[in-house]
Amino acid sequence: MPELTGGKLRGLIRLADDNGRFKMMAIDQRGSLKRLLGKLLDREPTYEEMAQVKELITKHLAPYATAVLTDPQYGYPFSTRHLSHATGLLLAYEETGAAKVGPFEDRVSGPIEGWGIEKALRAGADAIKLLVYFHPDAIPQAREKQCSFVREVGELCAQHSRPFLLELVSYARDEVPEPRRSELNEAGRKLEDTPEFARAKPDIVVRSAEEFSKPKYQVDILKLEFPADLKYTEEYCHRVFDDREREPVYTLEEVQDYCQQLDEAAGVPWVILSAGVEIEEFLVQVELATEAGASGFLCGRAIWKEAPQVKEGNGRKVLDVEAMEAWLTTQGAYNFARANAAAERAVPWFTRRPYAGRDTVVVAGRGENWHREF
Amino acid sequence: MPELTGGKLRGLIRLADDNGRFKMMAIDQRGSLKRLLGKLLDREPTYEEMAQVKELITKHLAPYATAVLTDPQYGYPFSTRHLSHATGLLLAYEETGAAKVGPFEDRVSGPIEGWGIEKALRAGADAIKLLVYFHPDAIPQAREKQCSFVREVGELCAQHSRPFLLELVSYARDEVPEPRRSELNEAGRKLEDTPEFARAKPDIVVRSAEEFSKPKYQVDILKLEFPADLKYTEEYCHRVFDDREREPVYTLEEVQDYCQQLDEAAGVPWVILSAGVEIEEFLVQVELATEAGASGFLCGRAIWKEAPQVKEGNGRKVLDVEAMEAWLTTQGAYNFARANAAAERAVPWFTRRPYAGRDTVVVAGRGENWHREF
Repeated sequence: MPELTGGKLRGLIRLADDNGRFKMMAIDQRGSLKRLLGKLLDREPTYEEMAQVKELITKHLAPYATAVLTDPQYGYPFSTRHLSHATGLLLAYEETGAAKVGPFEDRVSGPIEGWGIEKALRAGADAIKLLVYFHPDAIPQAREKQCSFVREVGELCAQHSRPFLLELVSYARDEVPEPRRSELNEAGRKLEDTPEFARAKPDIVVRSAEEFSKPKYQVDILKLEFPADLKYTEEYCHRVFDDREREPVYTLEEVQDYCQQLDEAAGVPWVILSAGVEIEEFLVQVELATEAGASGFLCGRAIWKEAPQVKEGNGRKVLDVEAMEAWLTTQGAYNFARANAAAERAVPWFTRRPYAGRDTVVVAGRGENWHREF
Repeated sequence: MPELTGGKLRGLIRLADDNGRFKMMAIDQRGSLKRLLGKLLDREPTYEEMAQVKELITKHLAPYATAVLTDPQYGYPFSTRHLSHATGLLLAYEETGAAKVGPFEDRVSGPIEGWGIEKALRAGADAIKLLVYFHPDAIPQAREKQCSFVREVGELCAQHSRPFLLELVSYARDEVPEPRRSELNEAGRKLEDTPEFARAKPDIVVRSAEEFSKPKYQVDILKLEFPADLKYTEEYCHRVFDDREREPVYTLEEVQDYCQQLDEAAGVPWVILSAGVEIEEFLVQVELATEAGASGFLCGRAIWKEAPQVKEGNGRKVLDVEAMEAWLTTQGAYNFARANAAAERAVPWFTRRPYAGRDTVVVAGRGENWHREF
């Protein structure tokens, strides 16, 4: 019978709906939100602006989420009071961004300075989230650092009996070699939005999930990328999700197969992340992922990226709170409701490997001595 | 602006409904449940029987509660999996019962051995509950021990940023002097069910609430006795709640006044406890207490004390699980629904002293450095 330590069981229950499906919102973005606001404001956003945008999004969209992932820097201090009685709380552990090493800019992550798991627990976190950028073929120096960071956080979560949610984000390395690499960079085009990377992505995502399903990492939930780029499928390559025409590298049927492979690779319940794709694309991803075995989603920008709005104020651009609230209570709510609907067929976490059904999930070591030995 | 540390704010939100009203269930009884089961089984209940009764009650009644208070000995290890996504969790800190000292058996409490606040946090407790038996006129040896125990737990809760819920239970001392004291004891009658104690109770309850409202105890919620015995009012003394005729010592109007005095004495939000009275009496208590300013209830036996049922099995009495589930899903659910209805006029905790409304309750020290300084 699969057993979970008390706090891990309690935490998993807190993150999902009562049927075991995760419908979670991510508002822990820091670097990407700064860039998004920077473009709108034509300047660097202030701390207060970052915090306010997070607060508004949390206030209006948290009621649709089974749990909210936020960060302790801009998010938690201002947004906590808007989390209702029923909403679970995940807190981010990693500092935003990553150092880049080696010829293909392999990523190395680190923790938030001045923060830590004891603080997250005191703050009332139901679970800990760690994002690592990962490529299974990264240079050993980067790969080992990422792996040992994950092990370290996995061990801390085990010690503190909190669910460990690990987010894996891939990146292009030698799939896009020189000189094409420099050409794309100079043109301001993402290396990841190329047929080369689209073709390589299923393998990268599946192998990464495989790696971090090893028991030594003590991961409880994997937050995974969709294992392909739908914009490079025969069906969706003709400007379905944006206005760019692309050459197809696979069919939707092949993508369904990649989703199956990913589900087989994932040794623990997994949820899909949005990576800021358009909401229409994300809804298709959620359908395909949950069909293959995912237990829901943990979605940020795909749901709320159009929320930030600005207006002229005292000769410079400032946040337009009224317009933001109007958007959040209409389009934002609609986006979330559709994502929730798409996740309604997700596989309840407690019926999925390594668990065997709701009634079999019990507290490890339960009995007369539990309180002494816990 | 009243400020709460992050974990305390989060915890308070988790315990109440989204309108700030506490509709909480206590199933952390140990001594009293052992006695109750002992009478039904004609023997000492086993560990497994205690745990099973708690598990069944939690499974069927927790869905009606905004939060559940349980104990780490029999309750938590088996009941946690039945707490839903939306249900808050309080864990008991004190060992059941109390040592008795001095001529009037003043009470001295202690912690659960092998347990502690770090464990409660790891187990996912949203708040810590401490029960102390207290009499403001107890001998200094007892009084000081109880007060310093409360201060100690208050300090731990502050350090760990968890709401501190303090339960105060009074007892008869020199209100019932010898030889009447011994006579009542020999007749198996409770000292607290006497006109003498009924008359003294308002003063004891009010003064105790006053004492532990002092900031040095760092209490966030007081769990208080009803400040009078309704069975000794002119209106309710004639076998309204049980089949005993009693002499009245006050009127209902006077009792309403005691409730007001209690509300004035309580410096923090307070909830009413049931002390195992009949459900009909408890419903009146909830109405009167919330009318005076209480923020809800934390109720145990009044709601579920008839749940345990036994049958013959292998020549001895055993638990009748089927009968228990039948009772819990009908009468038990009905009891809880009525208590919730009675609490619907409770004062939302965030509108009550020391708070000034939902929008003014914020995280202490929020800002750019919060995550470093928390």
